Amino acid sequence: MKLLEDRIRQDGTIKPGNVLKVDQFLNHQCDVALFDQMGAEWATIFACKPIDKILTIEASGIGIACCVARHFGDVPVVFAKKSQSINLDGDQYVSKIYSYTKQREFPVIVSKRFLTAGEHVLLIDDFLANGKAMNGLIEICKEAGVVIEGIGIAIEKGFQEGGRELRAAGYDVQSLAIVKSMDPDQGTIEFA
Amino acid sequence: MKLLEDRIRQDGTIKPGNVLKVDQFLNHQCDVALFDQMGAEWATIFACKPIDKILTIEASGIGIACCVARHFGDVPVVFAKKSQSINLDGDQYVSKIYSYTKQREFPVIVSKRFLTAGEHVLLIDDFLANGKAMNGLIEICKEAGVVIEGIGIAIEKGFQEGGRELRAAGYDVQSLAIVKSMDPDQGTIEFA
Repeated sequence: MKLLEDRIRQDGTIKPGNVLKVDQFLNHQCDVALFDQMGAEWATIFACKPIDKILTIEASGIGIACCVARHFGDVPVVFAKKSQSINLDGDQYVSKIYSYTKQREFPVIVSKRFLTAGEHVLLIDDFLANGKAMNGLIEICKEAGVVIEGIGIAIEKGFQEGGRELRAAGYDVQSLAIVKSMDPDQGTIEFA
Repeated sequence: MKLLEDRIRQDGTIKPGNVLKVDQFLNHQCDVALFDQMGAEWATIFACKPIDKILTIEASGIGIACCVARHFGDVPVVFAKKSQSINLDGDQYVSKIYSYTKQREFPVIVSKRFLTAGEHVLLIDDFLANGKAMNGLIEICKEAGVVIEGIGIAIEKGFQEGGRELRAAGYDVQSLAIVKSMDPDQGTIEFA
């Protein structure tokens, strides 16, 4: 998606350790008009797929998923939680992930009431790198018996293994921008 | 807002300890069509206020804020973070809050790049009870020198002190549903 690639080039910054900061528009400050256009793009890509629900993970996936849901007939958005709360009770699907950006392990929690066997689900997230977060969501989907119709990613780090592994496993991964390489010294970025 | 009150009566559940669970449509599964209508309501209420930016706090505020922003001319949404990350660097505004639902203290963090002195800000959150989270955001707004034009809350617990204190301090708090009392035994709820 050229619009997103241009925006990453314009407002993204590259940090040592292959960190791409896009907090100016994606995951701290949110450009909702951009999210809306991303939703339109995925709606075109997944037009032939029946989508009953969008599943994402807190926190950065939520805003994107909520803007995207409009383009799929206002389907419900469910966001997996990363910590227990007194508001979470009853039966839960729980998996575990390691977050590189937070440098610790998190639970991934979804109430069993919000995933029903046979439902057709679209997974959405802001980033795909090593695929840890997405694999946590997939594990929960498998346990719930829902059908994963596709995976929509805003920015995929194409030089890490997450996207390759998910596609090899048969998932329809649609990343709107795939970073092929980044150079922190030059500040340049190459897309696939 | 009758639509929200009806939805709370229909799908909310009351738990002992004055806990109102609305995870079916507000803060775990998200009804984006409802969020859109809430946005339209706040846009009417705050029509005479100049809003440059919406500020909320992760995680439950994000989806609401992103749907609401459409009704304010697609202004940027900034969400405060509740934990440090390697993606957060540079100068930050930081305050601290105690979360009753998580039963622990959290930092509230906003990068200084995303709040500029003199900006007109609308604060949005899903719940207002004792006001701890909102006071954390207000503290950051004061430090940043932004103008708080209003506070939009989905559900206010009118029997707790948060709303009263914020209004007494001069803030324009607009809650779309104010719970006057709840009875966990009868499952009944009364709105102000």
